[in-house]
Amino acid sequence: MTYLFEISYSGVNYSGFQIQPNAKTIAGELMRASKLLFGADCKVQGCSRTDAGVHAKQFFCSVHLPDDANKVPVDRIPAAINCLLPYDIAVKTAKLAPDGYNPRFETVCKEYSYVIYNRAEKNPFFHKLKLPYPYHLDEKMLDSQAKDFIGEHDFTSFMAVGSDVSTTVRTVYDAGVVRDGDDVIYSVTADGFLYNMVRIMVGTLLYISEGKIEAGAIPKIIEAKDRSAAGFTVPPDGLYLTKAVLK
Amino acid sequence: MTYLFEISYSGVNYSGFQIQPNAKTIAGELMRASKLLFGADCKVQGCSRTDAGVHAKQFFCSVHLPDDANKVPVDRIPAAINCLLPYDIAVKTAKLAPDGYNPRFETVCKEYSYVIYNRAEKNPFFHKLKLPYPYHLDEKMLDSQAKDFIGEHDFTSFMAVGSDVSTTVRTVYDAGVVRDGDDVIYSVTADGFLYNMVRIMVGTLLYISEGKIEAGAIPKIIEAKDRSAAGFTVPPDGLYLTKAVLK
Repeated sequence: MTYLFEISYSGVNYSGFQIQPNAKTIAGELMRASKLLFGADCKVQGCSRTDAGVHAKQFFCSVHLPDDANKVPVDRIPAAINCLLPYDIAVKTAKLAPDGYNPRFETVCKEYSYVIYNRAEKNPFFHKLKLPYPYHLDEKMLDSQAKDFIGEHDFTSFMAVGSDVSTTVRTVYDAGVVRDGDDVIYSVTADGFLYNMVRIMVGTLLYISEGKIEAGAIPKIIEAKDRSAAGFTVPPDGLYLTKAVLK
Repeated sequence: MTYLFEISYSGVNYSGFQIQPNAKTIAGELMRASKLLFGADCKVQGCSRTDAGVHAKQFFCSVHLPDDANKVPVDRIPAAINCLLPYDIAVKTAKLAPDGYNPRFETVCKEYSYVIYNRAEKNPFFHKLKLPYPYHLDEKMLDSQAKDFIGEHDFTSFMAVGSDVSTTVRTVYDAGVVRDGDDVIYSVTADGFLYNMVRIMVGTLLYISEGKIEAGAIPKIIEAKDRSAAGFTVPPDGLYLTKAVLK
């Protein structure tokens, strides 16, 4: 039996989604709660591998159960499993999926958003949920810079050095920066993301804002295929997977 | 030299304000950062003793330094010490205070607010910042109930059993419940608070909402001077010291 869960979570207290020995992970908590609910060990597969400290507002994962697992009416699963999960992980919907369904290979595109808290004063209540950045940000200028990410490109310059992938080409369908009060939010939609890609994009935009990289340089940085041409890697604090579109 | 700091903090990662051996506390972090800034050990005294997990939007503390401490212009202290403090503790203002100034004995009244996240769906991003409560709450009814706390009363029924205090009489100047979107907020202003007083008040209001205690019973519960007459003690998650008024 395979279920597809739509979930959301705060990454603050976790070492990422993916199961790891000796570390608290989202998948590990889902397996623990599933065992209580279904009386059986399960396998969990996510639509993405979010890093330690990264959050998700919409994330899909499949839960594979053996045939002798407890039968639970599928519409009752979210309420039941939410009681067994910690409060920082929520199952929003559950439905039956074809046997062996792996959302990672069914995801057409994903949207990530990175939230910068852009105020001079510290706000203790956004700790690890937004990146504090006290200096002036011109969201209109940054938005026009971000548009240069759009298109099919080799994003080697925006990948953590040493990542092992078969191809570094990705298609960015949309990218932009908006302001919402004190929050400056970078959002990017693509068919896939390289390791640390969004965090290096944001670090590059901040370097442009600070004059450490010149405005208009993003096409040249992409062209360079060299990590050192781009900006720094911002911390995971402000990063959210906000949308995953399945086939 | 004595400074008065106005601070705010998230209590999520701390065992309360008050210094404790072998526990991470707000006062401990302030002492650590002060030692880096002033090059000397200091003593820290708070206007209140918030418990583990309790937050403060406005809190005053005095910082007592020896005469040979580094001299730092007082208007520069907040920016300087904020860089040395973790992000979940913020110094908003600093000023010179009379030698030996202890804000605990200078506080005329304090306001606490308790934030209930009143929605059926879990929201992982308010973890430990609001109390999740999925059932219906009638804020107007609760507001009218809360008015019965106002006045000078013996609040023994609203004090954790075993607390050691010289008097259990406190004057509540104002108390009420409002709704702000999905948040239902109980606020109470008093000259002082007994141990767990606000959390037992909120637990009593929730019991009234659930019909476990009858509406209109608060005067009788106060009269009983018996902890078991009141409701349960809600967790610290939603509790904020929101205002402290100094002489």
